[in-house]
Amino acid sequence: MTDRIAALSATLAAFAHERDWEQFHTPKNLAMALSVEASEIVEIFQWLTEAQSKRLPPEKVQHLREELADTFVSLLKLADHYKVDLIEAAHQKLEKNAKKYPVEKAKGSAKKYNEL
Amino acid sequence: MTDRIAALSATLAAFAHERDWEQFHTPKNLAMALSVEASEIVEIFQWLTEAQSKRLPPEKVQHLREELADTFVSLLKLADHYKVDLIEAAHQKLEKNAKKYPVEKAKGSAKKYNEL
Amino acid sequence: MTDRIAALSATLAAFAHERDWEQFHTPKNLAMALSVEASEIVEIFQWLTEAQSKRLPPEKVQHLREELADTFVSLLKLADHYKVDLIEAAHQKLEKNAKKYPVEKAKGSAKKYNEL
Amino acid sequence: MTDRIAALSATLAAFAHERDWEQFHTPKNLAMALSVEASEIVEIFQWLTEAQSKRLPPEKVQHLREELADTFVSLLKLADHYKVDLIEAAHQKLEKNAKKYPVEKAKGSAKKYNEL
Repeated sequence: MTDRIAALSATLAAFAHERDWEQFHTPKNLAMALSVEASEIVEIFQWLTEAQSKRLPPEKVQHLREELADTFVSLLKLADHYKVDLIEAAHQKLEKNAKKYPVEKAKGSAKKYNEL
Repeated sequence: MTDRIAALSATLAAFAHERDWEQFHTPKNLAMALSVEASEIVEIFQWLTEAQSKRLPPEKVQHLREELADTFVSLLKLADHYKVDLIEAAHQKLEKNAKKYPVEKAKGSAKKYNEL
Repeated sequence: MTDRIAALSATLAAFAHERDWEQFHTPKNLAMALSVEASEIVEIFQWLTEAQSKRLPPEKVQHLREELADTFVSLLKLADHYKVDLIEAAHQKLEKNAKKYPVEKAKGSAKKYNEL
Repeated sequence: MTDRIAALSATLAAFAHERDWEQFHTPKNLAMALSVEASEIVEIFQWLTEAQSKRLPPEKVQHLREELADTFVSLLKLADHYKVDLIEAAHQKLEKNAKKYPVEKAKGSAKKYNEL
Protein backbone atom coordinates (compact mmCIF):
# COMPACT_ATOMS: atom_id res chain seq x y z
CA MET A 1 0.00 0.00 0.00
CA THR A 2 1.48 3.32 -1.00
CA ASP A 3 0.95 6.31 1.21
CA ARG A 4 -1.04 8.99 -0.64
CA ILE A 5 1.25 11.79 0.49
CA ALA A 6 4.38 9.88 -0.54
CA ALA A 7 2.84 9.30 -3.96
CA LEU A 8 2.10 13.02 -4.34
CA SER A 9 5.66 13.86 -3.28
CA ALA A 10 7.03 11.57 -5.97
CA THR A 11 4.81 13.17 -8.62
CA LEU A 12 5.92 16.64 -7.54
CA ALA A 13 9.58 15.68 -7.68
CA ALA A 14 9.16 14.28 -11.20
CA PHE A 15 7.27 17.41 -12.31
CA ALA A 16 10.13 19.67 -11.17
CA HIS A 17 12.82 17.36 -12.52
CA GLU A 18 11.33 17.24 -16.02
CA ARG A 19 11.38 21.05 -16.10
CA ASP A 20 14.85 21.36 -14.58
CA TRP A 21 13.34 23.39 -11.75
CA GLU A 22 15.26 21.86 -8.83
CA GLN A 23 17.73 24.76 -9.11
CA PHE A 24 14.94 27.19 -8.09
CA HIS A 25 13.41 25.03 -5.37
CA THR A 26 15.79 25.83 -2.55
CA PRO A 27 14.21 25.85 0.94
CA LYS A 28 14.54 29.65 1.05
CA ASN A 29 12.61 30.02 -2.19
CA LEU A 30 10.03 27.38 -1.24
CA ALA A 31 9.39 29.24 2.02
CA MET A 32 8.76 32.41 0.02
CA ALA A 33 6.44 30.55 -2.37
CA LEU A 34 4.58 29.02 0.57
CA SER A 35 3.89 32.42 2.10
CA VAL A 36 2.84 33.86 -1.26
CA GLU A 37 0.37 30.99 -1.77
CA ALA A 38 -0.96 31.33 1.78
CA SER A 39 -1.60 35.02 1.11
CA GLU A 40 -3.62 34.16 -1.96
CA ILE A 41 -5.91 32.33 0.44
CA VAL A 42 -6.01 35.35 2.76
CA GLU A 43 -6.92 37.52 -0.21
CA ILE A 44 -10.14 35.53 -0.71
CA PHE A 45 -11.28 36.32 2.83
CA GLN A 46 -9.83 39.76 3.53
CA TRP A 47 -12.97 41.88 3.09
CA LEU A 48 -15.50 39.23 4.16
CA THR A 49 -17.09 39.02 7.58
CA GLU A 50 -16.34 35.90 9.59
CA ALA A 51 -19.91 34.74 8.89
CA GLN A 52 -19.48 35.24 5.13
CA SER A 53 -16.18 33.39 5.24
CA LYS A 54 -18.02 30.26 6.37
CA ARG A 55 -20.19 30.03 3.27
CA LEU A 56 -18.36 31.06 0.14
CA PRO A 57 -20.28 30.79 -3.14
CA PRO A 58 -19.31 27.73 -5.25
CA GLU A 59 -16.99 29.57 -7.68
CA LYS A 60 -15.02 31.00 -4.75
CA VAL A 61 -14.80 27.53 -3.17
CA GLN A 62 -13.29 26.28 -6.42
CA HIS A 63 -10.77 29.14 -6.35
CA LEU A 64 -10.00 28.42 -2.68
CA ARG A 65 -9.49 24.74 -3.52
CA GLU A 66 -6.79 25.64 -6.04
CA GLU A 67 -5.02 27.96 -3.63
CA LEU A 68 -5.17 25.31 -0.90
CA ALA A 69 -3.57 22.92 -3.38
CA ASP A 70 -0.78 25.37 -4.27
CA THR A 71 -0.08 26.03 -0.61
CA PHE A 72 0.00 22.33 0.19
CA VAL A 73 2.40 21.67 -2.69
CA SER A 74 4.90 24.29 -1.46
CA LEU A 75 4.59 23.00 2.10
CA LEU A 76 5.12 19.40 1.08
CA LYS A 77 8.14 20.19 -1.09
CA LEU A 78 9.77 22.06 1.78
CA ALA A 79 8.95 19.25 4.20
CA ASP A 80 10.40 16.70 1.77
CA HIS A 81 13.69 18.59 1.51
CA TYR A 82 14.16 18.06 5.24
CA LYS A 83 12.53 14.61 5.27
CA VAL A 84 9.80 15.81 7.61
CA ASP A 85 6.67 13.65 7.73
CA LEU A 86 3.94 16.31 8.02
CA ILE A 87 1.39 13.99 9.62
CA GLU A 88 3.75 12.70 12.26
CA ALA A 89 5.09 16.22 12.94
CA ALA A 90 1.51 17.49 13.34
CA HIS A 91 0.62 14.78 15.85
CA GLN A 92 3.73 15.54 17.87
CA LYS A 93 3.07 19.29 17.79
CA LEU A 94 -0.46 18.61 18.96
CA GLU A 95 0.82 16.71 21.99
CA LYS A 96 3.01 19.68 22.82
CA ASN A 97 0.06 22.05 22.37
CA ALA A 98 -2.07 19.90 24.65
CA LYS A 99 0.38 20.74 27.44
CA LYS A 100 0.55 24.43 26.57
CA TYR A 101 -3.22 24.67 26.36
CA PRO A 102 -4.71 22.40 29.05
CA VAL A 103 -8.50 22.13 28.64
CA GLU A 104 -9.31 23.63 32.03
CA LYS A 105 -7.31 26.80 31.32
CA ALA A 106 -7.83 27.21 27.58
CA LYS A 107 -11.53 26.41 27.34
CA GLY A 108 -13.37 29.14 25.46
CA SER A 109 -10.32 31.41 25.39
CA ALA A 110 -8.42 32.70 22.34
CA LYS A 111 -5.49 33.88 24.45
CA LYS A 112 -1.95 32.77 23.73
CA TYR A 113 -0.56 30.20 26.17
CA ASN A 114 1.72 32.78 27.82
CA GLU A 115 -1.28 35.01 28.57
CA LEU A 116 -3.58 32.29 29.95
CA MET B 1 -7.74 1.12 6.64
CA THR B 2 -7.97 4.67 7.82
CA ASP B 3 -6.42 7.44 5.82
CA ARG B 4 -3.66 9.14 7.83
CA ILE B 5 -4.87 12.62 6.91
CA ALA B 6 -8.47 11.82 7.86
CA ALA B 7 -7.25 10.52 11.21
CA LEU B 8 -5.31 13.72 11.85
CA SER B 9 -8.36 15.81 10.90
CA ALA B 10 -10.46 13.94 13.42
CA THR B 11 -7.86 14.49 16.14
CA LEU B 12 -7.72 18.19 15.32
CA ALA B 13 -11.49 18.53 15.45
CA ALA B 14 -11.62 16.83 18.85
CA PHE B 15 -8.79 19.04 20.17
CA ALA B 16 -10.69 22.20 19.22
CA HIS B 17 -14.03 20.86 20.42
CA GLU B 18 -12.71 19.98 23.90
CA ARG B 19 -11.46 23.58 24.26
CA ASP B 20 -14.61 25.15 22.80
CA TRP B 21 -12.47 26.76 20.12
CA GLU B 22 -14.74 26.18 17.12
CA GLN B 23 -16.08 29.72 17.62
CA PHE B 24 -12.62 31.13 16.75
CA HIS B 25 -11.87 28.77 13.88
CA THR B 26 -13.81 30.53 11.13
CA PRO B 27 -12.26 30.26 7.65
CA LYS B 28 -11.30 33.95 7.81
CA ASN B 29 -9.38 33.39 11.05
CA LEU B 30 -7.84 30.12 9.88
CA ALA B 31 -6.57 31.88 6.74
CA MET B 32 -4.92 34.49 8.98
CA ALA B 33 -3.41 31.80 11.19
CA LEU B 34 -2.14 29.93 8.12
CA SER B 35 -0.31 32.99 6.82
CA VAL B 36 1.13 33.73 10.27
CA GLU B 37 2.46 30.17 10.54
CA ALA B 38 3.87 30.29 6.99
CA SER B 39 5.72 33.48 7.92
CA GLU B 40 7.29 31.78 10.90
CA ILE B 41 8.85 29.45 8.35
CA VAL B 42 9.99 32.41 6.24
CA GLU B 43 11.57 33.91 9.36
CA ILE B 44 13.90 30.91 9.66
CA PHE B 45 15.28 31.52 6.18
CA GLN B 46 15.10 35.30 5.76
CA TRP B 47 18.77 36.18 6.29
CA LEU B 48 20.26 32.90 5.01
CA THR B 49 21.72 32.42 1.56
CA GLU B 50 19.99 29.89 -0.65
CA ALA B 51 22.93 27.54 -0.08
CA GLN B 52 22.66 27.89 3.71
CA SER B 53 18.91 27.28 3.52
CA LYS B 54 19.60 23.80 2.14
CA ARG B 55 21.53 22.61 5.18
CA LEU B 56 20.12 23.98 8.39
CA PRO B 57 21.79 22.85 11.62
CA PRO B 58 19.81 20.16 13.53
CA GLU B 59 18.23 22.50 16.10
CA LYS B 60 16.90 24.72 13.32
CA VAL B 61 15.53 21.67 11.51
CA GLN B 62 13.65 20.77 14.67
CA HIS B 63 12.25 24.31 14.83
CA LEU B 64 11.32 24.16 11.14
CA ARG B 65 9.58 20.82 11.72
CA GLU B 66 7.32 22.41 14.33
CA GLU B 67 6.48 25.37 12.10
CA LEU B 68 5.75 23.02 9.19
CA ALA B 69 3.40 21.15 11.52
CA ASP B 70 1.60 24.32 12.62
CA THR B 71 1.21 25.46 9.01
CA PHE B 72 -0.12 22.07 7.97
CA VAL B 73 -2.62 22.06 10.82
CA SER B 74 -4.07 25.45 9.80
CA LEU B 75 -4.17 24.41 6.17
CA LEU B 76 -5.91 21.13 6.94
CA LYS B 77 -8.52 22.75 9.19
CA LEU B 78 -9.36 25.27 6.49
CA ALA B 79 -9.52 22.51 3.85
CA ASP B 80 -11.77 20.46 6.12
CA HIS B 81 -14.24 23.31 6.54
CA TYR B 82 -14.81 23.25 2.78
CA LYS B 83 -14.46 19.47 2.50
CA VAL B 84 -11.44 19.82 0.22
CA ASP B 85 -9.24 16.74 -0.11
CA LEU B 86 -5.77 18.32 -0.23
CA ILE B 87 -4.13 15.39 -2.03
CA GLU B 88 -6.77 15.17 -4.72
CA ALA B 89 -6.80 18.97 -5.12
CA ALA B 90 -3.01 18.97 -5.48
CA HIS B 91 -3.05 16.31 -8.19
CA GLN B 92 -5.71 18.25 -10.11
CA LYS B 93 -3.81 21.53 -9.77
CA LEU B 94 -0.70 19.75 -11.04
CA GLU B 95 -2.52 18.64 -14.18
CA LYS B 96 -3.56 22.24 -14.76
CA ASN B 97 0.01 23.43 -14.17
CA ALA B 98 1.32 20.84 -16.63
CA LYS B 99 -0.68 22.65 -19.32
CA LYS B 100 0.40 26.12 -18.18
CA TYR B 101 4.03 25.04 -17.99
CA PRO B 102 4.69 22.60 -20.87
CA VAL B 103 8.15 21.03 -20.53
CA GLU B 104 9.46 22.42 -23.82
CA LYS B 105 8.65 26.01 -22.85
CA ALA B 106 9.23 25.94 -19.10
CA LYS B 107 12.44 23.91 -18.98
CA GLY B 108 15.07 25.71 -16.92
CA SER B 109 12.99 28.87 -16.64
CA ALA B 110 11.60 30.50 -13.50
CA LYS B 111 9.27 32.76 -15.47
CA LYS B 112 5.55 32.87 -14.78
CA TYR B 113 3.40 31.12 -17.38
CA ASN B 114 2.15 34.41 -18.81
CA GLU B 115 5.74 35.54 -19.43
CA LEU B 116 7.00 32.31 -21.04
CA MET C 1 13.88 71.76 5.70
CA THR C 2 14.60 68.06 5.75
CA ASP C 3 11.91 65.59 4.82
CA ARG C 4 11.09 63.37 7.80
CA ILE C 5 11.14 60.18 5.71
CA ALA C 6 14.49 61.05 4.13
CA ALA C 7 15.90 61.64 7.59
CA LEU C 8 14.66 58.25 8.77
CA SER C 9 16.15 56.59 5.67
CA ALA C 10 19.52 58.12 6.44
CA THR C 11 19.37 56.91 10.04
CA LEU C 12 18.46 53.38 8.88
CA ALA C 13 21.32 53.31 6.38
CA ALA C 14 23.80 54.38 9.07
CA PHE C 15 22.43 51.78 11.50
CA ALA C 16 22.99 48.98 8.97
CA HIS C 17 26.36 50.32 7.85
CA GLU C 18 27.75 50.44 11.40
CA ARG C 19 26.81 46.78 11.85
CA ASP C 20 28.08 45.72 8.41
CA TRP C 21 24.57 44.48 7.62
CA GLU C 22 24.31 45.74 4.04
CA GLN C 23 25.39 42.27 2.88
CA PHE C 24 22.15 40.80 4.29
CA HIS C 25 19.83 43.58 3.13
CA THR C 26 19.31 42.47 -0.45
CA PRO C 27 15.87 43.27 -1.89
CA LYS C 28 14.99 39.56 -1.80
CA ASN C 29 15.78 39.37 1.92
CA LEU C 30 14.08 42.69 2.70
CA ALA C 31 10.92 41.44 0.96
CA MET C 32 11.00 38.36 3.20
CA ALA C 33 11.55 40.50 6.30
CA LEU C 34 8.70 42.79 5.27
CA SER C 35 6.27 39.89 5.00
CA VAL C 36 7.45 38.45 8.32
CA GLU C 37 6.88 41.79 10.05
CA ALA C 38 3.48 42.22 8.40
CA SER C 39 2.50 38.80 9.73
CA GLU C 40 3.44 39.82 13.25
CA ILE C 41 0.74 42.46 12.87
CA VAL C 42 -1.72 39.84 11.57
CA GLU C 43 -0.91 37.69 14.60
CA ILE C 44 -2.23 40.43 16.92
CA PHE C 45 -5.62 40.36 15.22
CA GLN C 46 -6.03 36.76 14.12
CA TRP C 47 -8.45 35.54 16.77
CA LEU C 48 -10.20 38.86 17.45
CA THR C 49 -13.54 39.86 16.01
CA GLU C 50 -13.56 42.88 13.72
CA ALA C 51 -15.19 44.88 16.51
CA GLN C 52 -12.49 43.87 19.01
CA SER C 53 -9.80 44.76 16.48
CA LYS C 54 -10.98 48.38 16.56
CA ARG C 55 -10.30 48.85 20.25
CA LEU C 56 -7.21 47.02 21.41
CA PRO C 57 -6.20 47.43 25.06
CA PRO C 58 -3.28 49.87 25.60
CA GLU C 59 -0.54 47.23 25.99
CA LYS C 60 -1.58 45.65 22.69
CA VAL C 61 -1.56 49.07 21.01
CA GLN C 62 2.02 49.50 22.20
CA HIS C 63 2.91 46.10 20.76
CA LEU C 64 1.14 46.98 17.49
CA ARG C 65 3.03 50.27 17.35
CA GLU C 66 6.35 48.39 17.44
CA GLU C 67 5.29 45.95 14.75
CA LEU C 68 4.05 48.83 12.56
CA ALA C 69 7.48 50.41 13.02
CA ASP C 70 9.32 47.22 12.04
CA THR C 71 7.13 46.79 8.97
CA PHE C 72 7.64 50.41 7.93
CA VAL C 73 11.41 50.07 8.31
CA SER C 74 11.57 47.02 6.01
CA LEU C 75 9.29 48.72 3.50
CA LEU C 76 11.32 51.91 3.49
CA LYS C 77 14.63 50.11 3.09
CA LEU C 78 13.29 48.19 0.11
CA ALA C 79 11.84 51.37 -1.41
CA ASP C 80 15.17 53.13 -0.90
CA HIS C 81 17.08 50.42 -2.75
CA TYR C 82 14.99 51.20 -5.83
CA LYS C 83 14.82 54.95 -5.12
CA VAL C 84 11.04 54.80 -4.83
CA ASP C 85 9.40 57.73 -3.02
CA LEU C 86 6.63 55.96 -1.08
CA ILE C 87 4.42 59.05 -0.75
CA GLU C 88 4.59 59.92 -4.42
CA ALA C 89 4.09 56.28 -5.44
CA ALA C 90 1.03 56.08 -3.15
CA HIS C 91 -0.56 59.19 -4.67
CA GLN C 92 -0.01 57.82 -8.17
CA LYS C 93 -1.42 54.41 -7.24
CA LEU C 94 -4.43 56.16 -5.77
CA GLU C 95 -5.10 57.96 -9.05
CA LYS C 96 -4.98 54.61 -10.81
CA ASN C 97 -7.33 53.09 -8.21
CA ALA C 98 -9.75 55.99 -8.66
CA LYS C 99 -10.20 54.83 -12.27
CA LYS C 100 -10.48 51.15 -11.34
CA TYR C 101 -12.97 51.93 -8.59
CA PRO C 102 -15.21 54.79 -9.78
CA VAL C 103 -17.44 56.01 -6.94
CA GLU C 104 -20.72 55.18 -8.67
CA LYS C 105 -19.72 51.53 -9.18
CA ALA C 106 -17.65 50.88 -6.07
CA LYS C 107 -19.79 52.62 -3.46
CA GLY C 108 -20.51 50.30 -0.55
CA SER C 109 -19.00 47.29 -2.31
CA ALA C 110 -15.97 45.21 -1.26
CA LYS C 111 -15.73 43.53 -4.67
CA LYS C 112 -12.51 43.54 -6.66
CA TYR C 113 -12.52 45.90 -9.66
CA ASN C 114 -12.80 43.01 -12.12
CA GLU C 115 -15.96 41.77 -10.38
CA LEU C 116 -17.74 45.12 -10.12
CA MET D 1 3.72 73.52 6.16
CA THR D 2 1.79 70.30 5.92
CA ASP D 3 3.46 67.00 6.61
CA ARG D 4 3.51 64.86 3.46
CA ILE D 5 2.36 61.74 5.31
CA ALA D 6 -0.50 63.58 7.00
CA ALA D 7 -1.60 64.88 3.59
CA LEU D 8 -1.57 61.35 2.15
CA SER D 9 -3.56 60.08 5.15
CA ALA D 10 -6.21 62.73 4.53
CA THR D 11 -6.44 61.78 0.85
CA LEU D 12 -6.79 58.10 1.75
CA ALA D 13 -9.53 58.82 4.27
CA ALA D 14 -11.47 60.86 1.70
CA PHE D 15 -11.04 58.13 -0.93
CA ALA D 16 -12.55 55.51 1.39
CA HIS D 17 -15.29 57.83 2.65
CA GLU D 18 -16.51 58.70 -0.87
CA ARG D 19 -16.86 54.97 -1.58
CA ASP D 20 -18.45 54.14 1.79
CA TRP D 21 -15.60 51.73 2.44
CA GLU D 22 -14.95 52.56 6.11
CA GLN D 23 -17.17 49.60 7.03
CA PHE D 24 -14.60 47.22 5.47
CA HIS D 25 -11.50 48.96 6.79
CA THR D 26 -11.43 47.49 10.28
CA PRO D 27 -7.94 46.95 11.73
CA LYS D 28 -8.38 43.19 11.36
CA ASN D 29 -9.12 43.55 7.65
CA LEU D 30 -6.40 46.14 7.10
CA ALA D 31 -3.88 43.77 8.69
CA MET D 32 -4.97 41.06 6.24
CA ALA D 33 -4.71 43.48 3.31
CA LEU D 34 -1.26 44.58 4.47
CA SER D 35 0.04 41.02 4.50
CA VAL D 36 -1.53 40.30 1.11
CA GLU D 37 0.16 43.36 -0.40
CA ALA D 38 3.49 42.50 1.23
CA SER D 39 3.26 39.03 -0.34
CA GLU D 40 2.77 40.57 -3.77
CA ILE D 41 6.20 42.09 -3.24
CA VAL D 42 7.60 38.73 -2.16
CA GLU D 43 6.16 37.19 -5.32
CA ILE D 44 8.35 39.48 -7.46
CA PHE D 45 11.50 38.14 -5.81
CA GLN D 46 10.64 34.53 -4.96
CA TRP D 47 12.55 32.76 -7.75
CA LEU D 48 15.31 35.33 -8.20
CA THR D 49 18.79 35.01 -6.74
CA GLU D 50 19.79 37.68 -4.23
CA ALA D 51 22.06 39.18 -6.90
CA GLN D 52 19.20 39.36 -9.43
CA SER D 53 16.93 40.91 -6.80
CA LYS D 54 19.27 43.92 -6.65
CA ARG D 55 18.85 44.86 -10.28
CA LEU D 56 15.33 44.28 -11.53
CA PRO D 57 14.57 45.26 -15.11
CA PRO D 58 12.66 48.59 -15.45
CA GLU D 59 9.19 47.07 -15.98
CA LYS D 60 9.59 45.00 -12.81
CA VAL D 61 10.71 48.08 -10.90
CA GLN D 62 7.52 49.80 -12.02
CA HIS D 63 5.50 46.80 -10.81
CA LEU D 64 7.41 46.79 -7.51
CA ARG D 65 6.75 50.51 -7.12
CA GLU D 66 3.00 49.89 -7.29
CA GLU D 67 3.13 47.05 -4.78
CA LEU D 68 5.25 49.15 -2.43
CA ALA D 69 2.57 51.86 -2.73
CA ASP D 70 -0.25 49.42 -1.96
CA THR D 71 1.62 48.05 1.04
CA PHE D 72 2.34 51.53 2.35
CA VAL D 73 -1.30 52.54 1.98
CA SER D 74 -2.52 49.57 4.07
CA LEU D 75 0.17 50.20 6.66
CA LEU D 76 -0.64 53.89 6.93
CA LYS D 77 -4.39 53.30 7.25
CA LEU D 78 -3.81 50.82 10.06
CA ALA D 79 -1.38 53.20 11.79
CA ASP D 80 -3.91 56.03 11.44
CA HIS D 81 -6.65 54.00 13.12
CA TYR D 82 -4.46 53.81 16.22
CA LYS D 83 -3.01 57.31 15.79
CA VAL D 84 0.51 55.90 15.43
CA ASP D 85 3.05 58.23 13.82
CA LEU D 86 5.09 55.76 11.73
CA ILE D 87 8.21 57.92 11.59
CA GLU D 88 8.30 58.54 15.31
CA ALA D 89 7.53 54.88 16.06
CA ALA D 90 10.36 53.81 13.72
CA HIS D 91 12.89 56.07 15.44
CA GLN D 92 11.86 54.74 18.84
CA LYS D 93 12.04 51.13 17.66
CA LEU D 94 15.50 51.83 16.27
CA GLU D 95 16.69 53.06 19.67
CA LYS D 96 15.41 49.85 21.18
CA ASN D 97 17.14 47.80 18.46
CA ALA D 98 20.40 49.66 19.06
CA LYS D 99 20.38 48.18 22.57
CA LYS D 100 19.40 44.68 21.39
CA TYR D 101 22.05 44.76 18.68
CA PRO D 102 25.12 46.60 20.03
CA VAL D 103 27.66 47.19 17.26
CA GLU D 104 30.43 45.16 18.89
CA LYS D 105 28.24 42.04 19.16
CA ALA D 106 26.11 42.37 16.03
CA LYS D 107 28.74 43.46 13.52
CA GLY D 108 28.66 41.24 10.44
CA SER D 109 26.19 38.80 12.01
CA ALA D 110 22.66 37.96 10.85
CA LYS D 111 21.81 36.23 14.13
CA LYS D 112 18.78 37.20 16.16
CA TYR D 113 19.56 39.18 19.32
CA ASN D 114 18.79 36.22 21.57
CA GLU D 115 21.37 34.10 19.69
CA LEU D 116 24.18 36.67 19.66
